[in-house]
Amino acid sequence: MQVIDGGVNAAKGFMASGAEAGIKYKNRKDMALVYTKSPAVCAGTFTKNVVKAAPVLWDIDIVRQEEAVHAVVLNSGIANACTGGEGRKINERMAEKTAKALGVGTKQVCTASTGVIGMQMNMDAVEAGIQQLAKGLSDSREAAAAAASAIMTTDTVCKEAAVTLEISGKKVTVGGMAKGSGMIHPDMATMLSVVTTDAVIGAGLLKKITTAVVAESFNMISVDRDTSTNDTFLVLANGEAENDEIMEGTKECEDFMEALTYVAVTLAKKMAADGEGATKLFETKVTGAGTKEDAVILAKSVITSNLVKTAVYGSDANWGRILCALGYSGVEFDPEKVDITITSAAGTLQLVENGKAADYSEELATGILSESSVTVVCDMKLGECEAVAWGCDLTYDYVKINGDYRS
Amino acid sequence: MQVIDGGVNAAKGFMASGAEAGIKYKNRKDMALVYTKSPAVCAGTFTKNVVKAAPVLWDIDIVRQEEAVHAVVLNSGIANACTGGEGRKINERMAEKTAKALGVGTKQVCTASTGVIGMQMNMDAVEAGIQQLAKGLSDSREAAAAAASAIMTTDTVCKEAAVTLEISGKKVTVGGMAKGSGMIHPDMATMLSVVTTDAVIGAGLLKKITTAVVAESFNMISVDRDTSTNDTFLVLANGEAENDEIMEGTKECEDFMEALTYVAVTLAKKMAADGEGATKLFETKVTGAGTKEDAVILAKSVITSNLVKTAVYGSDANWGRILCALGYSGVEFDPEKVDITITSAAGTLQLVENGKAADYSEELATGILSESSVTVVCDMKLGECEAVAWGCDLTYDYVKINGDYRS
Repeated sequence: MQVIDGGVNAAKGFMASGAEAGIKYKNRKDMALVYTKSPAVCAGTFTKNVVKAAPVLWDIDIVRQEEAVHAVVLNSGIANACTGGEGRKINERMAEKTAKALGVGTKQVCTASTGVIGMQMNMDAVEAGIQQLAKGLSDSREAAAAAASAIMTTDTVCKEAAVTLEISGKKVTVGGMAKGSGMIHPDMATMLSVVTTDAVIGAGLLKKITTAVVAESFNMISVDRDTSTNDTFLVLANGEAENDEIMEGTKECEDFMEALTYVAVTLAKKMAADGEGATKLFETKVTGAGTKEDAVILAKSVITSNLVKTAVYGSDANWGRILCALGYSGVEFDPEKVDITITSAAGTLQLVENGKAADYSEELATGILSESSVTVVCDMKLGECEAVAWGCDLTYDYVKINGDYRS
Repeated sequence: MQVIDGGVNAAKGFMASGAEAGIKYKNRKDMALVYTKSPAVCAGTFTKNVVKAAPVLWDIDIVRQEEAVHAVVLNSGIANACTGGEGRKINERMAEKTAKALGVGTKQVCTASTGVIGMQMNMDAVEAGIQQLAKGLSDSREAAAAAASAIMTTDTVCKEAAVTLEISGKKVTVGGMAKGSGMIHPDMATMLSVVTTDAVIGAGLLKKITTAVVAESFNMISVDRDTSTNDTFLVLANGEAENDEIMEGTKECEDFMEALTYVAVTLAKKMAADGEGATKLFETKVTGAGTKEDAVILAKSVITSNLVKTAVYGSDANWGRILCALGYSGVEFDPEKVDITITSAAGTLQLVENGKAADYSEELATGILSESSVTVVCDMKLGECEAVAWGCDLTYDYVKINGDYRS
């Protein structure tokens, strides 16, 4: 597997574009399109929020019916959530107009929206945007970047990742884009992500792999514990690499899964690092847990604690808050066995040994926590299971961004 | 029932004091004592965190064994949590020295600590503090306030409440104090609260009533979802009112429970309003839920959402975030039935009707949300059950306080 510079149109046969439709923002791209002429099999995972946005309901239906998919049309600015029957009609028209512009079926177009909840979209703006998008489709690097930047809301950086690998003598590419910086939490968030691949793979296996990959990537990040109405992760495979079909249980399947995991984890980490107001990527690794499930719960409990997150912001080795967050996670363990170590580019330091303060230098600890990417390792000494979760620090800017997001 | 000006020594036979022991803070009270010459029956509820501080383990044992209690000794500055066997020894000595100064048994003294996790207390300072406390004991209003202020950490105001009522022709008083502003969350928090009463009541019934009261008060507040290692709520009843013993299922029992609930809810709301960095008390009432349990989960989900809390801070009627927080609570409901109304001293306004924006004035909404106490009412239209939860807004100052709490 090789990491390459690329985005959502890196795989053979995929094109992308971004456009300024004026849905909510001025002078800013707010619509994106991903297109493949060859029909793609499509897998997806979606928000578990009871309140689901219109595009989420639309895509769930497409994925469930295993429709061949040719395109994904996305917009930022307005989430098309809590918009009732009118919102669902607008969403369907967005798919329909896109399908018409591309000469494909309406049910072959997935939709995704992100932005403010409760507002209706202006259909004239959307339709004009779709015309621009269809004209702008390209397999260029710039077109991928334009699509990725068009789905940003409070994101400060554009999120893309791509890799290539060889399967049965053919070059296979996996590339994708994502957005999301607030309302990010396990069980998906106000995140949108589209990953494309030219691999030949059946719809059933792609679904299985996608579910497993999401569990290790997007469902292990959290910015603020708020799960949104719009979270969508779509994987499209158009088969243009012409490899022998990937079959379950083979080395090829493992390789493909590794590639998809790399792209998803990279996008997920970029999301966590770009959490609203964040100054640091904050990783928690739990080792020595009794079960995988316990390891996941413990790691998530640490990265979601507001008190731990503010301590990380302040580069304060306040390990009591970490132990406390492990303690209220609901997992049983012996507090007097736990070891806690911090690590970053500046070094590694053990803070806690058997539940009590280790003999460490506060100065050294502050130095390690002052880096832009810091990891906390919690060894529970109960078993062999591990999990990694990613979050970010909680800062003044998170409050600023969310105290007046709409104004 | 009559609300009176009073605190933890308002009930007959109780005395209190506060002292500067120099445990961590300089020139600031950091130890408190509550004492009753007549032995008291004692009920308590404690943190559910797996990591329990030494004083929590001590008190759990006393309450379980139904020891007659004469005193509670408390300190702020250091939490005596994650301090291992040495911390447990220090805690026991704190009880022992207090018992000696008061001429009671060691196991008749409850302990409570709050502050930084992981540091050991200086026993010399604690012992000197205990001598001061024993000398300073008084039934004066000032002594109660001194005790209440001595347990403050990042609290900005002292929290006390008291009421009187008549039971079988005798005047009964219930009074208490509390502290807590960060790490406040359902299942208790880094909160300490001691309530005293002169009522005659059996230990078993007092326990039952205390559990029910906590469910409606301290377990319905949240500042930051972090449940601490030290949360302690103790109720002492010394029987000096000489009323006929309160029996289960009687009008007298109901009256007493109402009084205890009033004191506990008042203290809990003061805690929420004084949440770290908070500018507003934020109440959420859920009506029309299918079950009481659902109502509790929904109300808590709204008050704990960082995105709702920052919107409340910004006086922004961003109801999509409220609906979203209801949606990810785990409770099933029909989003297209929900009504949301906001209310404060400035008026009442419906924001959402049947899951969609009602026709309301943003200006009026901002006016209502600008008050120092705001309520959101969510009507699920599924049944008859209700719950109320209290929290606060999330502000720059929360980040400031917790970004460098230890420095």
